[in-house]
Amino acid sequence: MQIAILLYDKFTVLDAIGPFQTLSSLPGAEVVFVAEQAGPVLDDTRALSLVATKSLAEVSSPDIVVVPGSPEPALGNEAILDWLRAVDATTTWTTSVCTGSLILAAAGLLKGRRATSHWLALEQIKQFGVESTGQRVVFDGKYVTGAGVSAGIDMGLTLAGKIAGDEHAQTVQLMIEYDPQPPYDAGSPDKAPAALVEKFRAQQV
Amino acid sequence: MQIAILLYDKFTVLDAIGPFQTLSSLPGAEVVFVAEQAGPVLDDTRALSLVATKSLAEVSSPDIVVVPGSPEPALGNEAILDWLRAVDATTTWTTSVCTGSLILAAAGLLKGRRATSHWLALEQIKQFGVESTGQRVVFDGKYVTGAGVSAGIDMGLTLAGKIAGDEHAQTVQLMIEYDPQPPYDAGSPDKAPAALVEKFRAQQV
Repeated sequence: MQIAILLYDKFTVLDAIGPFQTLSSLPGAEVVFVAEQAGPVLDDTRALSLVATKSLAEVSSPDIVVVPGSPEPALGNEAILDWLRAVDATTTWTTSVCTGSLILAAAGLLKGRRATSHWLALEQIKQFGVESTGQRVVFDGKYVTGAGVSAGIDMGLTLAGKIAGDEHAQTVQLMIEYDPQPPYDAGSPDKAPAALVEKFRAQQV
Repeated sequence: MQIAILLYDKFTVLDAIGPFQTLSSLPGAEVVFVAEQAGPVLDDTRALSLVATKSLAEVSSPDIVVVPGSPEPALGNEAILDWLRAVDATTTWTTSVCTGSLILAAAGLLKGRRATSHWLALEQIKQFGVESTGQRVVFDGKYVTGAGVSAGIDMGLTLAGKIAGDEHAQTVQLMIEYDPQPPYDAGSPDKAPAALVEKFRAQQV
């Protein structure tokens, strides 16, 4: 089972690492990090590079694709959109985290489907004919989308359970001690102080 | 404010990325990834490399140090232990995630202090004169330790709040949409099915 995690300039690193840490121990899994060219790819903070082990051309039939998001998702990158359309034809699962769903949508893969995204992108994704929901993890056929950044952990665990069963996924959860205890309750626009949410929205215009 | 995240062969990637994603937007923060040599460092799955931007010799006075854990923490690596002892003399915060606390303890930095670690390492860390607790995030003076793997997100957010205030930390939480909704409740040995916990413990002997 080949799992291809897409990297591109300015991706958000936790978007990629949540699914990686929860899916990489699936029985028989081989994870490849894939980008236009193999080699280091800089994240959105410019402080960190992850190494792509394969170029797009070297990965033609992954079983699972994971597309992380970014503050500047690669919506106009035809090489990436073409690759996604090509590999999606034979994937078992095509997945995203955060605004990675905008990239899947820009490739035309989510048309008429239900999907989620970062809370700030739930309106934008409708432009691609997607029915957006504010849910944390959305399954629509083989398309699995997670909400913003940290939701990739929940997406990955949920998918791991579907693929390898509850006991495997619970083992992963125990291994990564995923018993979240956030010090605040500000992780969604419904829960964060209204002034913070408004400040964020204003910055997006 | 320089934040140095230590990388070493077979580190666990989410241990490093949880604090990175929650601390890197601190006002004035510069994050460096540091390893014995600059360049790619392979994680414990061998599928992923993060790029160390600096060697240990190039980072002599970070304000914050973050030590990720590993299934094989670098307890016998004298270069790393020496570096930790040297930089700890002037850090504002010395932190760890998961079995990273074993490395801090092996460097002698946690003697007589309270600290946490991955739940499987809570006995082992006592050998270094540490009072271990099963808490998710432990502050003892400037020493901040997080429990296993995913606890680095809670550790980072809590520390971000101490440094830059609640509003900053809540903004980070909202940005990374950290509103966890795990599909199972198996993230700690108290909550996971007893058979899974026993299986894990047996594998550790």
